[in-house]
Amino acid sequence: MSAKTRLRANETAIDLPPPGDATLRFVGRIRTPFKTRADCPRQGRQDGPECRLELDPVWEPALHGIEGYETLEVLYWLHESRRDLVTQSPRDDGRTTGTFALRSPVRPNPIGTSMVRFVRREGPVVVVRGLDCLDGTPLLDIKPNRCQYTPQVPPKPVD
Amino acid sequence: MSAKTRLRANETAIDLPPPGDATLRFVGRIRTPFKTRADCPRQGRQDGPECRLELDPVWEPALHGIEGYETLEVLYWLHESRRDLVTQSPRDDGRTTGTFALRSPVRPNPIGTSMVRFVRREGPVVVVRGLDCLDGTPLLDIKPNRCQYTPQVPPKPVD
Repeated sequence: MSAKTRLRANETAIDLPPPGDATLRFVGRIRTPFKTRADCPRQGRQDGPECRLELDPVWEPALHGIEGYETLEVLYWLHESRRDLVTQSPRDDGRTTGTFALRSPVRPNPIGTSMVRFVRREGPVVVVRGLDCLDGTPLLDIKPNRCQYTPQVPPKPVD
Repeated sequence: MSAKTRLRANETAIDLPPPGDATLRFVGRIRTPFKTRADCPRQGRQDGPECRLELDPVWEPALHGIEGYETLEVLYWLHESRRDLVTQSPRDDGRTTGTFALRSPVRPNPIGTSMVRFVRREGPVVVVRGLDCLDGTPLLDIKPNRCQYTPQVPPKPVD
């Protein structure tokens, strides 16, 4: 697939050993209106279309209490991304930026993170707005927005 | 290890098949002053102690341009966390909340995310403030803060 093999001018790829330091377990799939990469917006908008976080039913109890958060952090696996680029040229103009100074889906561990607006829950499905990923993207995690979240146990004393 | 086996009152664990849907490659290690879980603050503070993101040297070129961001998003692997709890009782009082409505390190894919303040870069090391993780935590990714980031290519036209 050309998106995985073609380098733009001055981009740098490295040889990597097979990944294997830790393993992920997909907890569901994300349904969006974006069927191809060309359909995906560059960044999600909280007034964007409704998208569905469809969890495997075994995880449904893990959603208990999620209605209390207006915004959620969603982690997902960018399953179509190559992983070996250290510098990238988003404009394809020969100027490059380091992968860790970009939010490109191309990264050594292609984990996408988005802040989304909670719309409603339908059993094991959470409906949200604000995603920009492909339809069918594997879901890794949902967390309350860190800015709205207070740990349920008190802070530890500072020395 | 007791932290991985003991359930608090009313917490729920499920039986899981071995993970294996996708694999991660650690890109470095995080050095913090927090040597044990008891040392870790509940949430990182941007005026907290300096911590070091020590990348494997092969990834050093991927840091090019990172100095341009005041805050960064850091992803890391919470390597000591159990992964099978669907409900948890942080206060150990019998009241439980779903894992996806908590920011607990215990989750099916124990990926931590933090927003940190960039302090300086020293070759393949990025010095930051704002982390709360254990010393030695495996590093997965660094991304510019999404709020400060503008894609280098123009937005796609909206239909």
